[in-house]
Amino acid sequence: MPVLNDEVPDDDDFDAGRKRGEFDHITPEDITQDHGSGRVTPPGWLDGAELGRIRRSVPIAYVEVVPVRTDELGRVVRVGSLLRVCDDGSIVERTLVTGRVLYHETVREAIARNIAKDLGDIALPVLPTALVPFTVAEFFPTPGMSPYHDERQHAIALCYVVPIAGDCKPQDETLDLEWIDPASDALERCLDQMSDGHGEILRQALAWAGV
Amino acid sequence: MPVLNDEVPDDDDFDAGRKRGEFDHITPEDITQDHGSGRVTPPGWLDGAELGRIRRSVPIAYVEVVPVRTDELGRVVRVGSLLRVCDDGSIVERTLVTGRVLYHETVREAIARNIAKDLGDIALPVLPTALVPFTVAEFFPTPGMSPYHDERQHAIALCYVVPIAGDCKPQDETLDLEWIDPASDALERCLDQMSDGHGEILRQALAWAGV
Amino acid sequence: MPVLNDEVPDDDDFDAGRKRGEFDHITPEDITQDHGSGRVTPPGWLDGAELGRIRRSVPIAYVEVVPVRTDELGRVVRVGSLLRVCDDGSIVERTLVTGRVLYHETVREAIARNIAKDLGDIALPVLPTALVPFTVAEFFPTPGMSPYHDERQHAIALCYVVPIAGDCKPQDETLDLEWIDPASDALERCLDQMSDGHGEILRQALAWAGV
Amino acid sequence: MPVLNDEVPDDDDFDAGRKRGEFDHITPEDITQDHGSGRVTPPGWLDGAELGRIRRSVPIAYVEVVPVRTDELGRVVRVGSLLRVCDDGSIVERTLVTGRVLYHETVREAIARNIAKDLGDIALPVLPTALVPFTVAEFFPTPGMSPYHDERQHAIALCYVVPIAGDCKPQDETLDLEWIDPASDALERCLDQMSDGHGEILRQALAWAGV
Repeated sequence: MPVLNDEVPDDDDFDAGRKRGEFDHITPEDITQDHGSGRVTPPGWLDGAELGRIRRSVPIAYVEVVPVRTDELGRVVRVGSLLRVCDDGSIVERTLVTGRVLYHETVREAIARNIAKDLGDIALPVLPTALVPFTVAEFFPTPGMSPYHDERQHAIALCYVVPIAGDCKPQDETLDLEWIDPASDALERCLDQMSDGHGEILRQALAWAGV
Repeated sequence: MPVLNDEVPDDDDFDAGRKRGEFDHITPEDITQDHGSGRVTPPGWLDGAELGRIRRSVPIAYVEVVPVRTDELGRVVRVGSLLRVCDDGSIVERTLVTGRVLYHETVREAIARNIAKDLGDIALPVLPTALVPFTVAEFFPTPGMSPYHDERQHAIALCYVVPIAGDCKPQDETLDLEWIDPASDALERCLDQMSDGHGEILRQALAWAGV
Repeated sequence: MPVLNDEVPDDDDFDAGRKRGEFDHITPEDITQDHGSGRVTPPGWLDGAELGRIRRSVPIAYVEVVPVRTDELGRVVRVGSLLRVCDDGSIVERTLVTGRVLYHETVREAIARNIAKDLGDIALPVLPTALVPFTVAEFFPTPGMSPYHDERQHAIALCYVVPIAGDCKPQDETLDLEWIDPASDALERCLDQMSDGHGEILRQALAWAGV
Repeated sequence: MPVLNDEVPDDDDFDAGRKRGEFDHITPEDITQDHGSGRVTPPGWLDGAELGRIRRSVPIAYVEVVPVRTDELGRVVRVGSLLRVCDDGSIVERTLVTGRVLYHETVREAIARNIAKDLGDIALPVLPTALVPFTVAEFFPTPGMSPYHDERQHAIALCYVVPIAGDCKPQDETLDLEWIDPASDALERCLDQMSDGHGEILRQALAWAGV
């Protein structure tokens, strides 16, 4: 089951990160030119075949974000998780905000872009002051090599807890964003519903935050 | 030179932290009763003689805060330092936000209280999600035992970088709060003006933040 | 139930840390002189009445150590816990290596001294390269204020995972040191047997180590 | 100037990591078969053309290691740096232990393999208990985008301080390993000789270690 997002963008995705300034110099020609793949893709994106080949060649750098609500003293009072339709369209899975770091994109930009993609443009995330992640999760295509599994690739995910100060509007394939009180019984159920190790990441995030 | 704040409150200090909720249950009797020390002090505070004796007996738990301004991607764009009059009234020293953790006070409350004391009530600090400090600074009364020196005491300071989102109004003995671009020449001058190791803490904060 | 060690040393305790070099300059006079308390104590130690009074006045700085065995790649393969007789002599409790930081002692010395006290002099601990703890645990005398409780005091514990490379010989009141495979069923039982929040610290240590 | 190692192995390199167990199942056929690239490469390695193409498509996951000598209390007393011949054979550069994470290799294995490659097989590195790096360094092919520059690629380096307990024998293109007292004047000279941001990583390592 593909647990990390499909990185080949839909047509309405391509300008998700434009306002971050990194792509301000891009002309319409950059967007519309065909790189020989038969698909038109923005800079940093790769067509499916090329990305698939790379995914079987090197580890792919990812960010994984645990969205939280905090109180005025910085304590985590809610943790967010996403409900989304699987690629085969039949099952709803629970996961976190996750996506790969694009070529020439900073880790901070990748965090901001993936949050905007899943939670919308007015989520007002409070990005971390330091890039030190609370954990590094290693996803392998071979099950059992680590607690983390991704059949498509070997991914190395830098994991961050990001307080969300604004309003969230689930985007695209995200059906819903659910906020859970980590002190409630709902937490265990939420952890159980997460597959491929994302629950383990959430558990580590809460341990790190002292919840 | 006393580099950390004098923790014996002035008369107009005692309610600095009241709105934090910890002291909401305090009655006027609590405030005005004489604990046998000849001074009237609020809960958690100690009179000067008793505090002095304890300071020569055990390490004192401190928090030390580096206030910063961050951009929308979480990067540090300004670092704050305080200018204050020394105890002898003659010299201005440059320091950070620092103070001890009171009895029965949480580390988070100590961070919030000391920021409010130095920067005012509308500074809107973004407190850390986890209590893991970026460094632990050990101040000794004996010079040279570590980079950190405090002639009054052995203090163990948990050090945090705290983004400040609101407006700052220097309080009490704080003359001014200065914001410096860490990429500018002003940084070295600022570091040089900090004594007793506080400059070292600022340097570590910037290294941790990747600035 | 006193969960952290009683810091007033027994007669046969006083030189536990001597070989660490910090006390090498101590003469017999230092040890035997009476500081007016009616008890003879080495430098840094406080008699019971004085320590009790201080414990009701300020937070006490502690270190808490999770001893582990690691493999050649640094992965945690065993976690250690102590079995000890409670103060009333009737119950065996399971805990971690813990103790307060003495006046004028560095955090590193406190870690080394408390490991030597509980595990013996040939445990060969691999002390951390940085003083940044994996978590800060706040013990309060009032139950329920945090996951951590200590009826004697408000303690702020800096928590470290320390690989043990040598042989352990339980000392003094420590009956046994038990090594548990964190991947085995024994872990949950071990966590359940730890009281006052020490199990929570172990859980956080394992989450931090990615176990 | 290529500052990170060329990952296309020399003929005598291919079994550098074999004893780590990950490749124990490899048969001679795996090593000698031609993957259509005209070069014979072991699993995880990529031929130069393919690696070059990938390096212009996605960020490459790296580890960067600061080797240190520590005293019995865990304090850093020496930092190591490598002197090596540049690719054009004319210049000696000073750098740290660095290399990419191979496909299906864990971060821990990558750390161990790269240390063995540069420092030899009896360096006895003490690998970190947790995978949390002290910093994440983002190398970009475009100078000025960050303090870190690598003309060949966009690399995301997880940076670790690793105590070295054994003897070091510089390997391959490494001319020498130099140990420097971080409290000496030699440190600044060492930092100045490191290019492309590696000195910045060393500076951050020392700040993190409290040196």
